Amino acid sequence: MDIFAHMQQALHDLKTAGNYRVFAELERQCSAFPRATVHRADGDTGEVTVWCSNDYLGMGQNPKVTGRMTEIIAKCGAGAGGTRNISGTNHYHVQLEKELADLHGKEAALIFTSGYVSNWAALGTLLSRIPGIIVYSDALNHASMIEGIRHSGCERRVFRHNDYQHLRKLMAADDPKLPKMVAFESVYSMDGDIAPIKEICDVADEFGAITYIDEVHAVGMYGPRGGGVAEREGLMDRITVIEGTLGKAYGCMGGYITGSEVLVDFVRSFASGFIFTTALPPALAAGATEAIRHLKESQVERARHQATVAKVRQALDARGIPHMHNPSHIVPVMVGNAAKCKWISDILLDQFGIYVQPINYPTVPVGTERLRITPTPLHSDADIKHLADALSSLWSQCALARKVA
Amino acid sequence: MDIFAHMQQALHDLKTAGNYRVFAELERQCSAFPRATVHRADGDTGEVTVWCSNDYLGMGQNPKVTGRMTEIIAKCGAGAGGTRNISGTNHYHVQLEKELADLHGKEAALIFTSGYVSNWAALGTLLSRIPGIIVYSDALNHASMIEGIRHSGCERRVFRHNDYQHLRKLMAADDPKLPKMVAFESVYSMDGDIAPIKEICDVADEFGAITYIDEVHAVGMYGPRGGGVAEREGLMDRITVIEGTLGKAYGCMGGYITGSEVLVDFVRSFASGFIFTTALPPALAAGATEAIRHLKESQVERARHQATVAKVRQALDARGIPHMHNPSHIVPVMVGNAAKCKWISDILLDQFGIYVQPINYPTVPVGTERLRITPTPLHSDADIKHLADALSSLWSQCALARKVA
Ligand SMILES: Cc1ncc(COP(=O)(O)O)c(C=O)c1O
Ligand SMILES: Cc1ncc(COP(=O)(O)O)c(C=O)c1O
Repeated sequence: MDIFAHMQQALHDLKTAGNYRVFAELERQCSAFPRATVHRADGDTGEVTVWCSNDYLGMGQNPKVTGRMTEIIAKCGAGAGGTRNISGTNHYHVQLEKELADLHGKEAALIFTSGYVSNWAALGTLLSRIPGIIVYSDALNHASMIEGIRHSGCERRVFRHNDYQHLRKLMAADDPKLPKMVAFESVYSMDGDIAPIKEICDVADEFGAITYIDEVHAVGMYGPRGGGVAEREGLMDRITVIEGTLGKAYGCMGGYITGSEVLVDFVRSFASGFIFTTALPPALAAGATEAIRHLKESQVERARHQATVAKVRQALDARGIPHMHNPSHIVPVMVGNAAKCKWISDILLDQFGIYVQPINYPTVPVGTERLRITPTPLHSDADIKHLADALSSLWSQCALARKVA
Repeated sequence: MDIFAHMQQALHDLKTAGNYRVFAELERQCSAFPRATVHRADGDTGEVTVWCSNDYLGMGQNPKVTGRMTEIIAKCGAGAGGTRNISGTNHYHVQLEKELADLHGKEAALIFTSGYVSNWAALGTLLSRIPGIIVYSDALNHASMIEGIRHSGCERRVFRHNDYQHLRKLMAADDPKLPKMVAFESVYSMDGDIAPIKEICDVADEFGAITYIDEVHAVGMYGPRGGGVAEREGLMDRITVIEGTLGKAYGCMGGYITGSEVLVDFVRSFASGFIFTTALPPALAAGATEAIRHLKESQVERARHQATVAKVRQALDARGIPHMHNPSHIVPVMVGNAAKCKWISDILLDQFGIYVQPINYPTVPVGTERLRITPTPLHSDADIKHLADALSSLWSQCALARKVA
């Protein structure tokens, strides 16, 4: 068998299906976000407005955050220089972990190199090392959670997305004596819907299960201190493990879990993906700490963010551009075809100076390709009008269905 | 079953075995490396000399690197703001990938959030998506490689550490028609020994296998341009995939693979651990690029590094402190007992201002506990004498065996 011919063929198949990805090469512009420079394949550059960033609140350019990073680079240098155990634990990691534990009202926190690794390592460790445990996993859980669960090799049941009745049915069918975990997200990033956290916790309680929530798309953005949807709904104490990222609303990079002293110490002591890897740079840890502190106090970013989201929805509705209604900040504009989705995205970039990446398989199921629009507090009314007008003109050119109001 | 009691017990067992880890809380001092501030549990601080950092060449405080990071934070902000596909690819990622491809003489490169993730994701993807492939894995491969291989679910054979005769025997026993990969490291980080790369490649060629090498502990440090041991030995073109980290000799954070256009595009297109995670901050990518460029030109750091390593070995030999002889920069001082190892490390920290983390299970097998000393070009002759004298005095107190010259 020719390995390279096989790989070539697989890439060819991706291209044929319209699922081959070409990355837009951007240059972010600090203090001008959501504006960025795009570097085109021919070497040309141009200005674009980014409408698909997960730097949801623009904290990546907040002067407190960038200032703190610069300060700590001057003080401590670039990298951590080691794994957490072998010379890599810095003062700023310890401070960040305290800040995160406080954010979620938990005894302890543990940081990882990314949200992906935090899910993979924490779920992989807990589920493989608690004998007999069964995990009940929401059908739309993120790839990182699925990989962690797979990695653990434990018994797994998949409950229908957000369907706590189905969850109850599955739990009732299992041996009551076996330990159990329910794993789910708060905000689902592609549809923007939100889990019925209370109802899921009620079912978990009924069967004595621990709970694990991914608040990656919610931390910083919901709750009076940015603790996420569980904070907003007063439910943080009902969740055993709250997981989050430092790479989206907090504008930096890294991931974490929070929970009880014992649970966090257990993951710290046994998770391969935590132990055998270089720690986050001290400056990133310090920058993220600053972002968390700022969003614990300030309501401005959250309020403006929600206001911009509402305006974007109104502008789309006014023009009959179909988008999924949901209670979050994510505005999925449905196209339903990989090639058309890419075509629209290309034209937006080339002719309108608007960058929205087409979302296709495997990120979303085939047939539900979409433009996933993420407004930020920094998009202006003019930006919104320009986006909605551009989409409207493409909707006509592309003969896509409009929504009748 | 009580989940928390179970975890508590597991932690208790770790403590009893002397394998419970307490992280030293450091504060790195840029421009004074290897000096650092240690924060003690009681809130006190003190000065220490770090002797166990993997910032092997002190590049984490190189003004070119820290200056570049600061510059790009001012220009682009803190984080990347998205996954590589969804607004997260920055100009500085693209530049870094070009630099890395050039470093290893390959067509292409792909960066990941860490060396751990690069091994896990690249091996996991290649081995799961090439039908029927068998991997031949060195018995001492790193946890991240083992996890990637496990994750793929492919057929695996483990060959005795560095034993290419055994490798040949295993390969000869398998179906010649099946695709094959040999996966190994160049410098093994705990014993500091180096793989017989040429002989392993010869065997791989005999059986038409592709080769995958982890040069995490060698990039930046070996070869005229820092391309690693394979560069030094003129063997880079015989390796299909060269993997490395940006978090050790390059002083930053991140990992990568390099290889042919098709292979790299294949991993880029199919690796979950690459696709579904926030990209590295642009400033980290730019800082790492600067470190790589510097070490492509400059021989000073490598020469001084080797000189310091030789001096440390001499100083230990002169005092009869047993250390593993090996052809690399890693100086493992063998203790062979978890409790004693920790005791020595504690006294070095508290009484001598020397920080060397004890290395215990699961990083090394039980009974081979050690102090893993990593000299840098920045340790002075006085530092070396102080370290060797301190160890000598502890060797007497602890009644540990000396090596007779
Ligand atoms: C639900 C969810 N969890 C986890 C992650 C991973 O977080 P990170 O980007 O910090 O790796 C993502 C996206 O990246 C996500 O969408
Ligand atoms: C051999 C080897 N490979 C990979 C890694 C992981 O690299 P990183 O620290 O960049 O995650 C390490 C250590 O951390 C290692 O020792």
